[in-house]
Amino acid sequence: MNRSQNVGLVKPQFFEFAAPPHEMKLACGRKLGPVTLAYETYGKLNESRNNAILVEHAFSGNAHAAGYLHPKDKHPGWWDTLIGPGKAFDTNRYFLICSNILGGCSGSTGPSSLNPSTGKPWGLSFPVVTVADMVEAQRHLIDHLGIGKLLCVVGGSMGGMQALQWVASYPERVASAIPIATTLKHSPQQIALDEVGRQAVMADDSWRHGNYYEHGQPRKGLALARMIGHITYMSDKSMEDKFSRNLKDKSFSYSFSSDFEVEGYLRYRGDNFVKRFDANSYLYITKAMDYFDLSGDRLFPDGRTVHTRFLIIAFQSDWLYPAYQSREIVHLLKTRGVEATYCEIKSTYGHDAFLLEIEEETHLIRHFLKKTFQVVSGG
Amino acid sequence: MNRSQNVGLVKPQFFEFAAPPHEMKLACGRKLGPVTLAYETYGKLNESRNNAILVEHAFSGNAHAAGYLHPKDKHPGWWDTLIGPGKAFDTNRYFLICSNILGGCSGSTGPSSLNPSTGKPWGLSFPVVTVADMVEAQRHLIDHLGIGKLLCVVGGSMGGMQALQWVASYPERVASAIPIATTLKHSPQQIALDEVGRQAVMADDSWRHGNYYEHGQPRKGLALARMIGHITYMSDKSMEDKFSRNLKDKSFSYSFSSDFEVEGYLRYRGDNFVKRFDANSYLYITKAMDYFDLSGDRLFPDGRTVHTRFLIIAFQSDWLYPAYQSREIVHLLKTRGVEATYCEIKSTYGHDAFLLEIEEETHLIRHFLKKTFQVVSGG
Repeated sequence: MNRSQNVGLVKPQFFEFAAPPHEMKLACGRKLGPVTLAYETYGKLNESRNNAILVEHAFSGNAHAAGYLHPKDKHPGWWDTLIGPGKAFDTNRYFLICSNILGGCSGSTGPSSLNPSTGKPWGLSFPVVTVADMVEAQRHLIDHLGIGKLLCVVGGSMGGMQALQWVASYPERVASAIPIATTLKHSPQQIALDEVGRQAVMADDSWRHGNYYEHGQPRKGLALARMIGHITYMSDKSMEDKFSRNLKDKSFSYSFSSDFEVEGYLRYRGDNFVKRFDANSYLYITKAMDYFDLSGDRLFPDGRTVHTRFLIIAFQSDWLYPAYQSREIVHLLKTRGVEATYCEIKSTYGHDAFLLEIEEETHLIRHFLKKTFQVVSGG
Repeated sequence: MNRSQNVGLVKPQFFEFAAPPHEMKLACGRKLGPVTLAYETYGKLNESRNNAILVEHAFSGNAHAAGYLHPKDKHPGWWDTLIGPGKAFDTNRYFLICSNILGGCSGSTGPSSLNPSTGKPWGLSFPVVTVADMVEAQRHLIDHLGIGKLLCVVGGSMGGMQALQWVASYPERVASAIPIATTLKHSPQQIALDEVGRQAVMADDSWRHGNYYEHGQPRKGLALARMIGHITYMSDKSMEDKFSRNLKDKSFSYSFSSDFEVEGYLRYRGDNFVKRFDANSYLYITKAMDYFDLSGDRLFPDGRTVHTRFLIIAFQSDWLYPAYQSREIVHLLKTRGVEATYCEIKSTYGHDAFLLEIEEETHLIRHFLKKTFQVVSGG
């Protein structure tokens, strides 16, 4: 493994805020505090504090976007291909921040965290949070890091929703945004796919209405939800390229065990997911995505003028967040006189393309950031 | 309700065959008998016995394709819009036959039938059947009805697979075939979608490894499988047109109950399905589809020449059986010198279009049948 182009060993960090009586007020009307966000940073904040980029992770991601947590780790962070010295998000130039979302299960406060008033995991008593709540929590972190204005907020999928939400919530604090493979609002098909995932979890008797922490995860239901997800992350073509109709053994089993490689792959990915992701977080985060809607006047409330620069990226074979949804973002931006560049990348990888089409993304992002930095620093 | 253009009251019929020691030999190598097929007929077989059309139903369909079973029935058979006096399949001209598939749960022998050697439901001891086995069972029925050569075999989705299989198994007995919204072989994406449906059923503890008949269906798992199915039957656009982001109540619940109309619809369709469809049949029939593969030389084994005329119909928004799969059928037919007409119908209904795009289908099918009948009767 070539680690020379890598940020190397990184350290998970934790920021706690909103301790009572200063709790966060959530969109649902409830209050929550104290709140912890797990985060990592790569590169250095410059003296002008104008080189900070906030990286937003997708649904099942975490704060570990680049580098290695342990010297013996086999795999680096989830976007290591784009974050590092000389890469698209060049850590020699920029200061990168990635935080696990509110409601998540990788170090940030979520339904698997302990409710301080009971000393037991929240489970379903955790408030239903929104993408706006996630961004509000991040805003506390950005304040804490002493950053007034972010050079860029970037993310794919639900990460892109957070990038858009930053502009809706704090446009004056975002010089640029790169929403990738995302949407202004979840469509009924996207809601439907999330709902079957939730139903899969909740139909599992081991889910116990969310109170499973003493007994172990609702393994079958969560694995099933993930299997459904994986189908939506790939394309018809990428599945054909990867699996075709290849059999696991030489002939049909004439039973209900896995005959085809694609079946074995899905089961493997489903089972793996159960080891690392909390079933209740699955429910909460998909609900936040379904509630997400910045269409109409919601991206620019109060008729405000926005100076954030946009780079919008979509992928042609992505059927989960189809390119037309990105074009709707571009259309909205253009009608409001906002500077926006749109690129639809040819790819057969489906939604996963935002993690895989590195060369194209690097080219687009590098130039966009360079130009944005010139604008910000008055160059 | 206007029943004037309808075949009226119809009677379910049952045909039993392959009683021991003359059992059917199945693709898996096992033998099965006696076998019952439930079927219905509409119109009359003419004296030349050359006006018979076999209608093949889709995955969750049944033999009740047209008319009413009871005078008070609210809904007619599943393809009543196309079958009846003056309709595409004109019962004044043609003799229509529709049978429930082998492995089904609507009157034909399947896993919920009694195993004659034990007197108990087969459950998972029922042999895994293939589309070729289904067609072989139908061939017995067609023999029984005294029909040498079918004027046409027609069906959508898995019904189209059976139409193709008829040509592969008995080309000399099929004057024409109309495969609609179907494929030569299940792709890995189609297999993957079937597999998550099966896993949903099998993950339900109430499934009891298929031995649930004394206790009731694995309700949650089967409903979940159907919910997944329903998403694939519609298109992104048709879901937007039907549901958009409409809420069931005035505001978000901030809970995990159904917020959106689309969620309520899916749950309703899932729960309804459980009342009418056997969970084990769900497993068996999806497996038969996944095993289906008439690509390469399998549609025309032994380099045979085939005189069957084809009309292939696909729908542009169908992403479960995309139009490219129909074009692959056409390509194969053309390379083998087989007469084939292809029509890709503009539609936003997704896969469901084969049940809904009546006007276009009527136009195409009516002319194709008229011409085929001329050819068959030497006109």
